[in-house]
Amino acid sequence: MPPPDSRIRKHEEDARGRPFHFLEARLLYCDAMLKQVLEQGRASADIALERLLPPGTQHPESIHRAMRHSVFAGGKRLRPILCMEAGRMISGTSSAGTLPAGIEDVGAALEMLHTYSLIHDDLPALDNDDLRRGRPTCHKAFGEAIAILAGDALQTQAYEVLAQLRCPAEARVDIIREIAHATGTIDGMIGGQVVDLEAEHKKPDLATLEYIHRSKTAALITASVVGGGMYAGATVEQIARLRGYGQSIGLAFQIVDDVLDLTQTSEQLGKTAGKDTAAEKTTYPSLFGIDESLRKADALVAQACAELNEFGSAASTLKDLAHFLVERKK
Amino acid sequence: MPPPDSRIRKHEEDARGRPFHFLEARLLYCDAMLKQVLEQGRASADIALERLLPPGTQHPESIHRAMRHSVFAGGKRLRPILCMEAGRMISGTSSAGTLPAGIEDVGAALEMLHTYSLIHDDLPALDNDDLRRGRPTCHKAFGEAIAILAGDALQTQAYEVLAQLRCPAEARVDIIREIAHATGTIDGMIGGQVVDLEAEHKKPDLATLEYIHRSKTAALITASVVGGGMYAGATVEQIARLRGYGQSIGLAFQIVDDVLDLTQTSEQLGKTAGKDTAAEKTTYPSLFGIDESLRKADALVAQACAELNEFGSAASTLKDLAHFLVERKK
Repeated sequence: MPPPDSRIRKHEEDARGRPFHFLEARLLYCDAMLKQVLEQGRASADIALERLLPPGTQHPESIHRAMRHSVFAGGKRLRPILCMEAGRMISGTSSAGTLPAGIEDVGAALEMLHTYSLIHDDLPALDNDDLRRGRPTCHKAFGEAIAILAGDALQTQAYEVLAQLRCPAEARVDIIREIAHATGTIDGMIGGQVVDLEAEHKKPDLATLEYIHRSKTAALITASVVGGGMYAGATVEQIARLRGYGQSIGLAFQIVDDVLDLTQTSEQLGKTAGKDTAAEKTTYPSLFGIDESLRKADALVAQACAELNEFGSAASTLKDLAHFLVERKK
Repeated sequence: MPPPDSRIRKHEEDARGRPFHFLEARLLYCDAMLKQVLEQGRASADIALERLLPPGTQHPESIHRAMRHSVFAGGKRLRPILCMEAGRMISGTSSAGTLPAGIEDVGAALEMLHTYSLIHDDLPALDNDDLRRGRPTCHKAFGEAIAILAGDALQTQAYEVLAQLRCPAEARVDIIREIAHATGTIDGMIGGQVVDLEAEHKKPDLATLEYIHRSKTAALITASVVGGGMYAGATVEQIARLRGYGQSIGLAFQIVDDVLDLTQTSEQLGKTAGKDTAAEKTTYPSLFGIDESLRKADALVAQACAELNEFGSAASTLKDLAHFLVERKK
């Protein structure tokens, strides 16, 4: 049974006396706007990735084809979209503001880093997964050696791109430091992956589970939002707001991911379903059940949106994106 | 039979009429100075690495212990030393000039990148090596999953360090771009590794062999020298000189490495000897024989030193280091 739509609930709680059919119409409008943000964001991330990744005909071809195989496998480009929309919010006063020129390159670098982590996570020595986004994983298609090197190369390429962004050098080094830390071993992506590996077939406590989620997933999502803000010249206070938003939606995103692993088929997911149960992983739903996990995710989204209240209407897209991350559960 | 000492030959060719015993005494003095440069450089690189790598007691411990296992396995720290001495040459007019403050952090980042490449090269899917610098390889000591992630993490940590160097942000992004490109897929370290993998059990031509050596080894050595120069504020012309020097010594270094693989024992090398022959790899000595390969290496060293003539006596340490790379063969 799906839980009630959190957006309608939110609007009802506004107590502004608007009738339900008005709210319903507004929701349809929001959905259409959000769909446009997602589609346009994905398209511009893809154009940037196409430009910034060496072509498959570039020597040595195998590695470039392997990098492209995994990058162009139908990802939603959530991290680039969050990055670009954070930049748009900071640079404009309205949600119709234009994107800061060149910010899609930050998004492309984030997607390269995300893809490198997927390629390495899928390796036989780690999750040993054959399927990713509905296609053979990199090592299945190109062999283990090239997959390891393709992951390495996507990480390298990301930093080469970030070093050449069209923003002041000071902002570039800030973005690089932020992203490197978020993907590192201390409260970052690799640290989360290590603790996750070591927690298999054990029963970690809630603190360990939260460490895994915050580090493995939320850290890079947070860096995406913060990096986009930095690109657009955000103040220290604005960065702190973006960080709070990113941390909350990042954790909500991972909770929903764990739920989807339980409730959806491999076909729906585009990757092997039920992996967590098979690996006896502790997840939010395994500790709290599905309903309570989703309530927790909703609360985190509300908290994320509250962080952005001071940005007024300019924050509406990031707020819609926060809700969208949780709506995926339906 | 060892070939004649190229430094004595060089001095004889100077035809400055100095008697042999004078040259011999000067050589002993140079050896003592060089030994000091190598020992002090290694010590300051090690101190920087100790400071910049998370301690083995830092959560999650396994990954930090694995990173340190491979980094502190007795490397010569050649890349950091080349980087620091390039910086010293640019910043001072004499070879007794002081090091630019904080340049050892560039060196430490270079060593992290070099170590990441060794960890991944040693994996079962690549070279499948059990021994490195006389110790068990990372995956032998910590398992494959942690070894893959430790390599990833060393790359990440290198960029986090580079983003926080004590030089202007403009120089930092230049250094990051230079190093990322040198370790990437196009004429860089990963590209060289891919072509090397694909050349096994084949008979690649000289052009392919030179591509492998220039990309797999010389590119990062060049970036070490160029990066050190950039840190010290080198001009575009000075960078071009350093690049020429780095490319020549990098290729000479790899030729000598191939010779050592044939002529030394595993114990002397601290890694498995005879690997190239076993893998039927084409190498310089397999194409030209040992003597001709060493003559080629000597010529490259002379070429490297000629690039630095305009720096006068400030270049003496880098010139001595160039000779040292080839002298390893004895």
